[in-house]
Amino acid sequence: MTQAVDTPRTASRQATFTGLKCKECGETYQPEAKHVCEDVCFGPLEVAYDYDAIRRQVTRETIQAGPNSIWRYRAFLPVETDTPIDVGTGMTPLLSAQRLARRLGLKQLYIKNDAVNMPTLSFKDRVVSVALTRARELGFTTVSCASTGNLANSTAAIAAHAGLECCVFIPADLEAGKILGTLIYDPTVMAVQGNYDQVNRLCSEVANTKGWGFVNINLRPYYSEGSKTLGFEVAEQLGWQLPDHIVAPLASGSLFSKIHKGFQEFIKVGLVEDKPVRFSGAQAEGCSPISQAFKEGRDFITPVKPNTIAKSIAIGNPADGVYALDIARKTNGTIEDVTDAEIIEGIKLLAETEGIFTETAGGTTIAVLKKLAEAGKINPDETTVAYITGNGLKTQEAVKGYIGEPLTIEPKLNSFERAWERANTLNRLEWQQTLV
Amino acid sequence: MTQAVDTPRTASRQATFTGLKCKECGETYQPEAKHVCEDVCFGPLEVAYDYDAIRRQVTRETIQAGPNSIWRYRAFLPVETDTPIDVGTGMTPLLSAQRLARRLGLKQLYIKNDAVNMPTLSFKDRVVSVALTRARELGFTTVSCASTGNLANSTAAIAAHAGLECCVFIPADLEAGKILGTLIYDPTVMAVQGNYDQVNRLCSEVANTKGWGFVNINLRPYYSEGSKTLGFEVAEQLGWQLPDHIVAPLASGSLFSKIHKGFQEFIKVGLVEDKPVRFSGAQAEGCSPISQAFKEGRDFITPVKPNTIAKSIAIGNPADGVYALDIARKTNGTIEDVTDAEIIEGIKLLAETEGIFTETAGGTTIAVLKKLAEAGKINPDETTVAYITGNGLKTQEAVKGYIGEPLTIEPKLNSFERAWERANTLNRLEWQQTLV
Ligand SMILES: [Zn+2]
Ligand SMILES: [Zn+2]
Repeated sequence: MTQAVDTPRTASRQATFTGLKCKECGETYQPEAKHVCEDVCFGPLEVAYDYDAIRRQVTRETIQAGPNSIWRYRAFLPVETDTPIDVGTGMTPLLSAQRLARRLGLKQLYIKNDAVNMPTLSFKDRVVSVALTRARELGFTTVSCASTGNLANSTAAIAAHAGLECCVFIPADLEAGKILGTLIYDPTVMAVQGNYDQVNRLCSEVANTKGWGFVNINLRPYYSEGSKTLGFEVAEQLGWQLPDHIVAPLASGSLFSKIHKGFQEFIKVGLVEDKPVRFSGAQAEGCSPISQAFKEGRDFITPVKPNTIAKSIAIGNPADGVYALDIARKTNGTIEDVTDAEIIEGIKLLAETEGIFTETAGGTTIAVLKKLAEAGKINPDETTVAYITGNGLKTQEAVKGYIGEPLTIEPKLNSFERAWERANTLNRLEWQQTLV
Repeated sequence: MTQAVDTPRTASRQATFTGLKCKECGETYQPEAKHVCEDVCFGPLEVAYDYDAIRRQVTRETIQAGPNSIWRYRAFLPVETDTPIDVGTGMTPLLSAQRLARRLGLKQLYIKNDAVNMPTLSFKDRVVSVALTRARELGFTTVSCASTGNLANSTAAIAAHAGLECCVFIPADLEAGKILGTLIYDPTVMAVQGNYDQVNRLCSEVANTKGWGFVNINLRPYYSEGSKTLGFEVAEQLGWQLPDHIVAPLASGSLFSKIHKGFQEFIKVGLVEDKPVRFSGAQAEGCSPISQAFKEGRDFITPVKPNTIAKSIAIGNPADGVYALDIARKTNGTIEDVTDAEIIEGIKLLAETEGIFTETAGGTTIAVLKKLAEAGKINPDETTVAYITGNGLKTQEAVKGYIGEPLTIEPKLNSFERAWERANTLNRLEWQQTLV
């Protein structure tokens, strides 16, 4: 169904989640604004579902008859309401990337493009739509987040649509486009003089003193479930099958783990056939704690101090890092990192071959994809999906100085002809140089 | 169907267009790269269809079973191939805008949001997808355009995906985001020292000397048909009904005319019931030749020299202006213009109420929507659709200086508490001032 979004629907369905459960010790909790196993082991809490109930509610057909947004998968999401905050988030294109594939020596490459996600052009719109819907159910009137930029954009925008008060926390040195792309929605913006990990720690304290719903702190168990839809959509868009290999960026490690969980849930309820899917992760060399642990064979993460242009994934102390490590290992995937120069090349490569302009996180994913392809770590025949999680217009400073210049001309035919001649001579020279 | 895009499809369907036809004198032409009635009256050419053939091919169900992109409406588009260039363009959300509606005293307001269109975040991706598919069919290997920015972004991106050579022409004073958002795809960019109308004239000359496909010149009849999909999608998303009133920006007037044509075609083949739809158009005061003609009761356009921040719609000599005028008059709509200050307020209003960040063209549309609502020219009960055609991240300079600032704090709880206190005091003061 392709109806207008955020209009009340009549079909009343039952909530399918039963509460929260500790990922480490299994202790269960009421489905409140809580993210830590405070009674037992201080492990992270996760939403628990009644998969029999989901199986009874859901078929391929009911999903296809649902809205053209993440809410077609509502039975797999931790909300009770029949009228979630639906601004048309999700159902972004899965693009068959034949020119990029050829350049990398691959045959079955797809790009899942959240650079055009609604409303704020990153995958964060998925997690925030879920978190704010749950926040409203739990009675919060002010919502907040600790953000490297994309999350602030998304929280401010969706809070505006939903009429919730909003206060976001960002590192003070963020890219201009991400700050302006938050302020435009008129939230309170706290620019913290420190890196993301410091912002995050401050927010944990604020969460304890204010009665606010922090999407990625006290609402984190609900919030992170939104990323499963990146797994669901790819499976549905591949014609109800799983891919052979996915490549995704690693920041906290949550996105990676939740794509995996999404695939597992679709198998569990019989929507797709079981098969092995390899999970490979991408980090920037300047902030690669998970990649380092992977390469050194460690099963614990040593926090690092980030220093990379890929700010949106620069989390030095990744909360779900060990889960990401575990998934990459047990699925026979890889975790790799790339330099800032390779990230810029990755952004350009994707733009020039497929017409998609991604931000530094996406450049990281493409650069790692290239590195893995060149190292033979992706089988050319594998159906491979690379996840592009954000838009390049937000991090324009990263590529400025690394792309060409316009040719300035007068509005006259001969001025054009001269410039065209010059451009072609330059191109020929460059081409000859590549042959030397 | 929600499958991956740009994978070859098997179903072979016949082309439904029969040739080109002069809009003025009716003279017919072969479906070549031609846009002017050169044998008779020099009027503009338009694509002619065999609507009986379309009626035989198309039902609501076949459309819904098609791709999740503009190509679900392929029977209404002027291409022969079964494998068009499909990068997932179109099927952007239609958002029920309840908070904005309340602010404007309306009840049934929707936003059609092409600010998240794939791949380059404007409605131009629709027209370019069609034009480049047709360009390829006609044997062109180099494509080009005269652009105020969005069209350059789109042509460069989709040409990159399709592997076509690309050279675009823009006015040299464009917004930085639009230049960078073109260069990233590595086309040749000609920055012309002049306004859009001068760029356009130069391109007409170049089109005559080079064997290039100019999407908005010699391919214009095909290109402009892509905008009909903005009519088709709204009708489908409203549950196969037409709205009562639409508000769209006017640049050349083509978008406006083609939304109208889209609605008419859906009526003609029986996909929706016939009903009156009012068409209202939005211009910036600094470039309002169509609005001026409307207000003065003229049926001809007097060209103007543009001077407005709404550069993407600043066309002083609009090619389809008289058709837009005619549609507004015969549908009982209005054409209105707003100042640059009102445009900025329009951008902020949409962001603060609905979480959508649009560029200056969208700000123009929202500002005109507000003006019409306040003047009683929109009936509160009318189902009204406002078309948002581009993304605010491309024209950041327009709002810089008109939005708030982040509050800079140290990563400490008491630093936050002080800032929060300050922010609330300021808010209270502002609030009190509004009461004075
Ligand atoms: Zn525990
Ligand atoms: Zn004619």
